[in-house]
Amino acid sequence: MKARIEIRLKTGILDPQGKAIGGALAGLGHAGLGEVRQGKLIEIDLPGITDKAAAEQEVAAMCRTLLANPVTEDFRVELTD
Amino acid sequence: MKARIEIRLKTGILDPQGKAIGGALAGLGHAGLGEVRQGKLIEIDLPGITDKAAAEQEVAAMCRTLLANPVTEDFRVELTD
Repeated sequence: MKARIEIRLKTGILDPQGKAIGGALAGLGHAGLGEVRQGKLIEIDLPGITDKAAAEQEVAAMCRTLLANPVTEDFRVELTD
Repeated sequence: MKARIEIRLKTGILDPQGKAIGGALAGLGHAGLGEVRQGKLIEIDLPGITDKAAAEQEVAAMCRTLLANPVTEDFRVELTD
């Protein structure tokens, strides 16, 4: 089973990296852009887990304890075989 | 229109950040993990563009000139209204 984890800053949390990207894109001539937000994409191969519920639980635990900052970030997990 | 850009290291390119995450997860007791890869997720609001083909072209140009490293990274763009 493979897990695909998207980690984003919560709505309303300032994203300085996204702002910097937006500024750089404007400097390159991409006018009229709205908000730019940067998040993380983590893909984990779980060869030992075949049960979807078990995988969900394990990956959520990984997010809560290491991958995401629960104060400032939200995470979303997608599992594929 | 909104663009959602996923930037990943090309297959075969060493991902030290992913390896570090895998090592840290193993240290927290998550045994038997396979490969871990980390990528970037960038979301850009494009309020001035309503044409999908124009948006695709503009976002691909952003990726080639700033967001992705064409030597080591692949990008994938998804557009939504």
